[in-house]
Amino acid sequence: MGLVVQKYGGSSVADAEGIKRVAKRIVEAKKNGNQVVVVVSAMGDTTDELIDLAEQVSPMPAGREFDMLLTAGERISMALLAMAIKNLGHEAQSFTGSQAGVITDSVHNKARIIDVTPGRIRTALDEGNIAIVAGFQGVSQDKKDITTLGRGGSDTTAVALAAALDAEVCEIYTDVDGVFTADPRVVKKARKIDWISFEDMLELAASGSKVLLHRCVEYARRYNIPIHVRSSFSGLQGTWVSSEPIRQPSEQGEQQVEQAIISGVAHDTSEAKITVVGVPDKPGEAASIFRTIADAEINIDMVVQNVSAASTGLTDISFTLPKAEGRKAIDALEKNRPGIGFDSLRYDDQIGKISLVGAGMKTNPGVTADFFTALSDAGVNIELISTSEIRISVVTRKDDVPEAVRAVHTAFGLDSDSDEAVVYGGTGR
Amino acid sequence: MGLVVQKYGGSSVADAEGIKRVAKRIVEAKKNGNQVVVVVSAMGDTTDELIDLAEQVSPMPAGREFDMLLTAGERISMALLAMAIKNLGHEAQSFTGSQAGVITDSVHNKARIIDVTPGRIRTALDEGNIAIVAGFQGVSQDKKDITTLGRGGSDTTAVALAAALDAEVCEIYTDVDGVFTADPRVVKKARKIDWISFEDMLELAASGSKVLLHRCVEYARRYNIPIHVRSSFSGLQGTWVSSEPIRQPSEQGEQQVEQAIISGVAHDTSEAKITVVGVPDKPGEAASIFRTIADAEINIDMVVQNVSAASTGLTDISFTLPKAEGRKAIDALEKNRPGIGFDSLRYDDQIGKISLVGAGMKTNPGVTADFFTALSDAGVNIELISTSEIRISVVTRKDDVPEAVRAVHTAFGLDSDSDEAVVYGGTGR
Repeated sequence: MGLVVQKYGGSSVADAEGIKRVAKRIVEAKKNGNQVVVVVSAMGDTTDELIDLAEQVSPMPAGREFDMLLTAGERISMALLAMAIKNLGHEAQSFTGSQAGVITDSVHNKARIIDVTPGRIRTALDEGNIAIVAGFQGVSQDKKDITTLGRGGSDTTAVALAAALDAEVCEIYTDVDGVFTADPRVVKKARKIDWISFEDMLELAASGSKVLLHRCVEYARRYNIPIHVRSSFSGLQGTWVSSEPIRQPSEQGEQQVEQAIISGVAHDTSEAKITVVGVPDKPGEAASIFRTIADAEINIDMVVQNVSAASTGLTDISFTLPKAEGRKAIDALEKNRPGIGFDSLRYDDQIGKISLVGAGMKTNPGVTADFFTALSDAGVNIELISTSEIRISVVTRKDDVPEAVRAVHTAFGLDSDSDEAVVYGGTGR
Repeated sequence: MGLVVQKYGGSSVADAEGIKRVAKRIVEAKKNGNQVVVVVSAMGDTTDELIDLAEQVSPMPAGREFDMLLTAGERISMALLAMAIKNLGHEAQSFTGSQAGVITDSVHNKARIIDVTPGRIRTALDEGNIAIVAGFQGVSQDKKDITTLGRGGSDTTAVALAAALDAEVCEIYTDVDGVFTADPRVVKKARKIDWISFEDMLELAASGSKVLLHRCVEYARRYNIPIHVRSSFSGLQGTWVSSEPIRQPSEQGEQQVEQAIISGVAHDTSEAKITVVGVPDKPGEAASIFRTIADAEINIDMVVQNVSAASTGLTDISFTLPKAEGRKAIDALEKNRPGIGFDSLRYDDQIGKISLVGAGMKTNPGVTADFFTALSDAGVNIELISTSEIRISVVTRKDDVPEAVRAVHTAFGLDSDSDEAVVYGGTGR
């Protein structure tokens, strides 16, 4: 008998009807002879409503109490889901993160999982139950306080439980059919990816793809847990994320999925660019700038230093960072201006990033040239460039992003024959 | 430094404004030099909304999951309350029933408290925190499952914690000013009671007074924990419930509250009457009727057996029970009709019960006579009578109840000089 972990996001359990629909799907998996563990997020807008309440009583809700509050959301959805399954004649028990043995550190609102001790889940499964587990939450190792895992935390819960229980697969149910070669809202001809390696998925996630979060994929890679991203609204096969291509039964019999040269095109318009103008071109200048940024606990993404103008001995340094951190970075740099020594700062939040991801580009030297040609043909100006072994990213004007993504998608032969992409709405946590 | 347990019902924390108002009151108690433990119910209609959701996914929600669901309500209110207190510059931590050490049996939806081990609460207090505890919930001793205590459970949580922490007082904050000599919605001149004994309060609760539930008072009496029932909407002294009258500071200096002969008049229109007609008047007949009722797990209240008619050797037996149990009782009796032997059953749900409660009546033989005279003068017909040492109850037509209560209230000199009673709305759990 196999053990399957399934995760359902908030949009899949947005109301009583959604919960009943999901319950039927879970029961199917059980009937197919599996032991089934289900990780569930809070219903639809519950989390936003709780955050709203918190802001009404306190402008700066405290970490511990904020976590206590938010975890009420999964408590509701998991209990209702267990009831709905029992109503279909199958045994089910719900467990909080703490009861499920999800042990974390004490960093409230964005705790990291330290250990998973799923003794109660194992017992429940052995007694014939379907186990329903609250996503997004755990209990701190030292203080036994309730913690939450931050954005995308339920996916991480699912992968962590799958690893601890040695599951065959971790199925992530969401409101899209899988991972696409580009955002289907931008590229109508985006194609669903049948299989993608952990490495390519990590790059896509880091480059703006929102279907799976980086942390969750990283966890799955570390423990080699295959992830199957699929829609809770259809019965279609979705996208497999794993170390090696997985043979999947298909209508044409067994089918081997080959790794494509290019996995997909990701884009991100959530960043801004800061340019430090008139920096003396001497050793240690860049270091003092980025030490200032690091001390302010700001993560930066791409960095470019211009060629120095020989006449002045001054240069410009640009970097990108999340828009939300922009104010903080500017303040930190201004504060340290005497120590760093620069003329002025430029802040630009009208940028976008386009990334091409694929392990195949390592051995295909023409990829970079083809990428720039496609952008040039589309009349898109490139402002910054950054590359890794399996990714090329460029920064452009924000308004150019949709056209740039479509042009690159077509140039690399990623377009599907039909407009197949289906989008249902937002995703849960 | 004293230790005070305060309990706030759902109507006191119905919205963000209510939570902020309650937070201020809690901080006042802390500033007055007390260690403060707060037990809180779910906000306003939260519980009803959760029950509604449960009914949408399952017609018969299972006990364990239903408890898991409902306990989300207190989780929300307690976390928000802790945030609101911290926002006022005081330290606060919230605790679930399980974290607070509320250990119960495994009877879901109406668990009983077996033990309270408030180690974490004690630590939090010693570290200078205000401790906020979820009412109504605990954790089962054997299975470590989340349980709920049933109706009025938060009051019981508060009293149990007060006992375990050896608190000076358990303050029950509600939406009325205290316990009244009659229901102020029926008797405009009802007077707030300053002090009442545990025994009289138990009789009032058993007779239909809804301010404190029987179970909570019983617990307080067993551990001798004084209860102070008061309004969260005013600063007024409420009603003290304790073994001995408590000296309270008042505007006229120290004041000794004397026990009145009569504490109050309670009424109850939630019961029905079943009459078993034509029962052979011989030993064992009543026993077989009430064995049948007991086997169906139905609690009955008053019982009366008519004088047997000599000519037939048959008699009638009447008893009252909660309306909700009526159908079940009739079915059980009909099923056992051959064994019991009776002619027919009469079911009457248009009855009401009026009770006069007061330890003083033990030594005042005229009380019963005065009670009947008052009812007679008001033109109210008495159908059943039952008495204890400190209570007389009668059953009348339901429509006669308001007039009967007012007449008795006036006859025993309970009317206040002014229409002082204030009613704010429903009470929480």
